[in-house]
Amino acid sequence: MKRIMLSHGGGGLQSQELINGLIIKHFSNPILNNLEDAAVINTPSLLAFTTDSFTVSPIFFNGGDIGKLSIAGTVNDLSMMGARPLFLSVSFIIEEGFLISDLEQIIISMKQEIDVTGAQIVTGDTKVVPKGAVDKIFINTSGIGQIVYQGISSKNLSEGDVIIVSGTIGDHGACILAQREGITLQTSLRSDCQSLWQLVNSLIESGIKIVAMRDPTRGGLAAVLNEWASASNIEIEITESAIPIKPEVFGICEMLGMEAVTFACEGRMVIAVNKNDAQRALETLRSHPLGRDASIIGVVKTIKNVGAGLVPALLQGYPYQVILKSDYGTSRIMELPSGELLPRIC
Amino acid sequence: MKRIMLSHGGGGLQSQELINGLIIKHFSNPILNNLEDAAVINTPSLLAFTTDSFTVSPIFFNGGDIGKLSIAGTVNDLSMMGARPLFLSVSFIIEEGFLISDLEQIIISMKQEIDVTGAQIVTGDTKVVPKGAVDKIFINTSGIGQIVYQGISSKNLSEGDVIIVSGTIGDHGACILAQREGITLQTSLRSDCQSLWQLVNSLIESGIKIVAMRDPTRGGLAAVLNEWASASNIEIEITESAIPIKPEVFGICEMLGMEAVTFACEGRMVIAVNKNDAQRALETLRSHPLGRDASIIGVVKTIKNVGAGLVPALLQGYPYQVILKSDYGTSRIMELPSGELLPRIC
Repeated sequence: MKRIMLSHGGGGLQSQELINGLIIKHFSNPILNNLEDAAVINTPSLLAFTTDSFTVSPIFFNGGDIGKLSIAGTVNDLSMMGARPLFLSVSFIIEEGFLISDLEQIIISMKQEIDVTGAQIVTGDTKVVPKGAVDKIFINTSGIGQIVYQGISSKNLSEGDVIIVSGTIGDHGACILAQREGITLQTSLRSDCQSLWQLVNSLIESGIKIVAMRDPTRGGLAAVLNEWASASNIEIEITESAIPIKPEVFGICEMLGMEAVTFACEGRMVIAVNKNDAQRALETLRSHPLGRDASIIGVVKTIKNVGAGLVPALLQGYPYQVILKSDYGTSRIMELPSGELLPRIC
Repeated sequence: MKRIMLSHGGGGLQSQELINGLIIKHFSNPILNNLEDAAVINTPSLLAFTTDSFTVSPIFFNGGDIGKLSIAGTVNDLSMMGARPLFLSVSFIIEEGFLISDLEQIIISMKQEIDVTGAQIVTGDTKVVPKGAVDKIFINTSGIGQIVYQGISSKNLSEGDVIIVSGTIGDHGACILAQREGITLQTSLRSDCQSLWQLVNSLIESGIKIVAMRDPTRGGLAAVLNEWASASNIEIEITESAIPIKPEVFGICEMLGMEAVTFACEGRMVIAVNKNDAQRALETLRSHPLGRDASIIGVVKTIKNVGAGLVPALLQGYPYQVILKSDYGTSRIMELPSGELLPRIC
């Protein structure tokens, strides 16, 4: 069993062997293979640029691993800006003693995922740190995309806009949590980890006007909706029973006293569209394999007179809110998540 | 003493407070402040793109800290490609319990350093991981630069080219090592950590043809020269006494049985120019505050008939080499560094 040694990160002979023998071997393309201090890229002029570090634990999970996640996460951030992913950088921080075979498995996952998106890995960095300085492996990816659809913004929502999610909520968070806590499930819950560019592209090509679009990662659906309500200064009313949640995810939430709407997804998006576009947007999403379980979950309202139940939120300085309506006519605030949530979920 | 909590990385309320109250406060600019999933940037079309993760220990050192280093490192990688640094991303991975005041000090260093370069921080990410999952703080920066000078390449060196270093070699490596090992020095050795763009720009504006250019980070001068010899399939002859090395750095090397030419620099560059340009390049560098100690250290030769002393290198599969000539007429191979070198030097 070959292991990562500190010398693999030293910048000398063994670094070259690791980079050429493993990283370039799998990611090989003409831009990356130049191996200068930076990749030289020729791009259209309006670009999206994003970065994300991935620290997920466990690094291998049902439905993916830290490698697949590190590609999907950055590709999705670009996609949410209406940007076609073009170029990614990859930076590894690896603990001394890490299994080379595990690293190769992660790299192969990354290669498979990047190929799905049509983007390329063009530059990178590898650091090896002594045992105990990092838990196994962290990966940073940064991405550049060509903006092909402009005007998506959290500040754009207005009364009557319809809120759609592209699939079941909280699968990734519940899957990681279950594996971490050793919860054995009867059905095999998988992370939703996947790159959304193809789905976003089909929505763009359908001609539907996208008002706002976000992938609900850390903080989950609750964080996205609260950020939108805040940025656009509106109220969002969500029908609780319309939120697609898998029974296994619901079960884990019940067991742990948590809410699925705060669980991270890594292959879902929340979209706001004009009410006239809502049905067609839903059909477009559902006709794509990545959006089969898409659902309309709510609608944007302007801020109404505030009843007694909403005062606590107002006192906290949030004069906008997300209201969760039950089928029984009751309603409560879906708060911006607060506190520890789930560390190392992504 | 306020400390980083896991909730600062959870994607909820406390994350927003940290990002707005500390990160945006210092890095504020119109592109960053949009706070969407990715920064929208308008760029010229030929770009350099690079990434680097910084894991240096200790995080505060004489002459800089992990924040300054994380900006200089990425700015320098862009600069070495003849690219004017335009946009940087910043991604923090922070250990739970880290002092907020230390984080602010690091962020202020980053802001001061980015301002020197004329670039902007336009997108970012912050993860907080439980105690023990990371040692204090790691920072990834990725950078986009506009290529204003084309044709720099490790593959370009040919017979007669002159090798110049922009300043003393190994200061950063020696400084980190001394601090880590608790070596107290009579003089106060400082890291050379600095952004080289202004120096590179002055070289470009002087009209000198730059054949090759690299910043000797991990693996030091020895790694750069060996990579050049390999990529261009030539031999490089270095005059040992011409390499500028501070007495303190030399002293630390003697003490630890190490070679300064393998020590990382974080604010130096190695340049290859045509022999007709060498004197003018040297003067241009020396007339700039960042290149005051620039020196011509060697010359490119074609590969000669190989004597007995060089056979070991050939057997290792390196039919190119870097020869170090002493003032006494003897010569030895400056090998590509191998083995552990110095982990967490950058």
